Amino acid sequence: MNAAVESYVRAEWERYVEELAALLRIPSVSVGTEHRDSIQKAADWLADRLRKAGMEHVEVIETEGNPIVYADWLHAPGKPTVLVYGHYDVQPAEAADGWDTDPFEPVVRDGNIYARGATDDKGQLIIHVNAVEALLQAEGALPVNVKFCIEGEEEISSPSLPGFLEQHADRLHADVIVISDGPMIAHGTPSICTSLRGLAGMEVRVKGPAQDLHSGLYGGGVQNPIHALTHLLASLHAKDGKVAVEGFYNGVQDLTAEEREQLRCLPSDEEQIQRELKVPALYGEEGYTFLERTTARPTLEVVSVTGGFQGSGLKPAIPTGATTKIACRLVGQQDPDAVMDAIERHLQQHCPPGVTVELIRQHGGRPYQVSADHPYLRAAAEAYGAAFGKEPVYTRSGGSIPIVEVFNRVLGVPVVMMEFGLPDENLHGPNEHFHLENLEKGMLTACRYLHRLAEEK
Amino acid sequence: MNAAVESYVRAEWERYVEELAALLRIPSVSVGTEHRDSIQKAADWLADRLRKAGMEHVEVIETEGNPIVYADWLHAPGKPTVLVYGHYDVQPAEAADGWDTDPFEPVVRDGNIYARGATDDKGQLIIHVNAVEALLQAEGALPVNVKFCIEGEEEISSPSLPGFLEQHADRLHADVIVISDGPMIAHGTPSICTSLRGLAGMEVRVKGPAQDLHSGLYGGGVQNPIHALTHLLASLHAKDGKVAVEGFYNGVQDLTAEEREQLRCLPSDEEQIQRELKVPALYGEEGYTFLERTTARPTLEVVSVTGGFQGSGLKPAIPTGATTKIACRLVGQQDPDAVMDAIERHLQQHCPPGVTVELIRQHGGRPYQVSADHPYLRAAAEAYGAAFGKEPVYTRSGGSIPIVEVFNRVLGVPVVMMEFGLPDENLHGPNEHFHLENLEKGMLTACRYLHRLAEEK
Repeated sequence: MNAAVESYVRAEWERYVEELAALLRIPSVSVGTEHRDSIQKAADWLADRLRKAGMEHVEVIETEGNPIVYADWLHAPGKPTVLVYGHYDVQPAEAADGWDTDPFEPVVRDGNIYARGATDDKGQLIIHVNAVEALLQAEGALPVNVKFCIEGEEEISSPSLPGFLEQHADRLHADVIVISDGPMIAHGTPSICTSLRGLAGMEVRVKGPAQDLHSGLYGGGVQNPIHALTHLLASLHAKDGKVAVEGFYNGVQDLTAEEREQLRCLPSDEEQIQRELKVPALYGEEGYTFLERTTARPTLEVVSVTGGFQGSGLKPAIPTGATTKIACRLVGQQDPDAVMDAIERHLQQHCPPGVTVELIRQHGGRPYQVSADHPYLRAAAEAYGAAFGKEPVYTRSGGSIPIVEVFNRVLGVPVVMMEFGLPDENLHGPNEHFHLENLEKGMLTACRYLHRLAEEK
Repeated sequence: MNAAVESYVRAEWERYVEELAALLRIPSVSVGTEHRDSIQKAADWLADRLRKAGMEHVEVIETEGNPIVYADWLHAPGKPTVLVYGHYDVQPAEAADGWDTDPFEPVVRDGNIYARGATDDKGQLIIHVNAVEALLQAEGALPVNVKFCIEGEEEISSPSLPGFLEQHADRLHADVIVISDGPMIAHGTPSICTSLRGLAGMEVRVKGPAQDLHSGLYGGGVQNPIHALTHLLASLHAKDGKVAVEGFYNGVQDLTAEEREQLRCLPSDEEQIQRELKVPALYGEEGYTFLERTTARPTLEVVSVTGGFQGSGLKPAIPTGATTKIACRLVGQQDPDAVMDAIERHLQQHCPPGVTVELIRQHGGRPYQVSADHPYLRAAAEAYGAAFGKEPVYTRSGGSIPIVEVFNRVLGVPVVMMEFGLPDENLHGPNEHFHLENLEKGMLTACRYLHRLAEEK
């Protein structure tokens, strides 16, 4: 890679930030249906941006859900082909959730850009678009073949993407897949993630009386669906923090001494995490560290619960039902369907008298692991080392990108998780932001990586 | 009472129904703050109606909360004074909750009038207004002195009324208080309620991390406030349906054999109740019948629970907190404050690690009991017998009108619960209605009662 690329990146810096702000201004929330127009707008914006970057065959492809943006540049015969995946959809965000500024009006402050989607995933995704533009402008060509596949349903577990991959397997064929959609281990320390937890997402509905009942006239005489639901939910965990569902841990292998040692070497300050979260104590499965609990052990989290009158004031009525949503993170060989089977059995077996319970399956994604010794991962490590001045460490992520496992399974090639976010950038929370220093270092890493890959074939 | 009253009631029937519909059309919901204008409108409507009925000193009196409508007619020197209490506020209602017609657009069908507030309490309250009008028009005078005190905060546990009663004790002084705000035991069988359960209403908040956390990156490593809340709520009841809070049953005396026998004589078909509610089974404290559980035993009902993302779709985030509202029904000598103390202690003692819990007291009302042998109750029994052609039975209500106990305590006189609703009129639920036959029989009962009371002094 010649110095012209670095010069180009620095010369175009202000435009890059403005363009990222323009993309962040589009509230492309995929949860719910209120933001359909913005989803389309974000897809069109990206297609336009990819064309300007010099990519070819740019297309916004309709699916049964949100559209997928495809583009390629295939003028490096005999060289490897890289498929870059990213997502333009974002989590919901309301100013009232604790944002200091409007979540969809980006603000640059103290070297960060604040907006929903800044780090997850618009800021990280745009790095690769800018990188190919810089290489094409500064060097006239890309060192390898590059494809983009950018979806709009990652935050709702990518229902359309697996079918899309199978349908377009030839067009999407590549030697390696690159995804930048997570945090580095720490500021200044690049990292490559070698494992992701899987996800099983479901809704549980408890049904009771046919209509709301006055709690005075019926209270004590019928099963209250909220009581039944809380009883069921409380039964899902044992006192030691383990999941108390029979069969839940099938496919989970305990950490080896070597794996525990690797995790122990990673920076993780439990006291600092506790201070930042302002909780009286951290909590989790007995016998494991915070890092083990959140990256290498499976979990079952109740992420929402709703029952009874939701307005202000006390409406003393027993509701007809109560609902909850559960998100499990899976590891090893855990199978999302088998986990949901186990939970469904548990709920039916523990259902209190006087109500019925039903489980509705929403999302499933398997866990994923890749070896740090793979040549394409070693190439990424070298690119990071050059751009950041520091060798990356290898990490496990507690999060789920179910699509990583799908890419690996459907296209049969390794996935390199090349992350440029930071752990404190509040993805999914208020005041989400992205460290602009990593926008620049990310572009340089991405450019170097494409050059380094060209040596592999 | 002469025949002219009955003739007058029958001649004015259509107007009475139209007037009730006009009152029901005003959505005077007291829960929340959205319906302030309608609260004022309902109070003004009633004041106007009382003036037209011939009542004097009619006044809409401001309080710190919703206004109270006062009126009197005091031209029966030497005769008893009756204070009629009612409430013009109603429970929330949305067409989407399962209403067949708009809850605030009354419809007459099959002898019932359907609308929110039809039986609770506008339909029952208006009976007394129509009765004094009929007596004044047909006989030129009332047989006793009559006062009205109609509030607009009953559905939010009457926060302003106790202070109002103490402040205006002289003006409100009476020999007996009459309240029509509940159901008769069955269609065609009048009943007089001799006991009400008390109420303790509270909100419980569990607080966890300072911000919403991605369930992948933090799941398994921090206490989830929803888990903590469901654990706490599940701990409130034992397997036998009893409340598992130490001290909760203080002041509760078990039913005597005689009391159980009295309850056994009342009509109560548990199979029919189960069929109507469409539940797989009834459920409650072991060793008690449905009627005992819902009228003579105390209960703790969780009436709402809220935590996590409430929109459609799965947002896999651990929320900062979770909240719940609890309504306890109290009997015997249970004290609402002592009950809330006991629950607060229980919650603190059972609070899981990693979160904090807080209890906010919202409402309190003591249980109330009166003897069926009281002359003013016997007078009511005779009036019912004449109007309905059937002697009333004496019942216990599982509901709470905390203000009944307050009236009794502050004004020091008995409260007669003269009920004209029916048990299946869906108060607090969708398709609330009022049986119009009882509007007519109620007016005749109320007229006869005033005549009968005149004989007591």
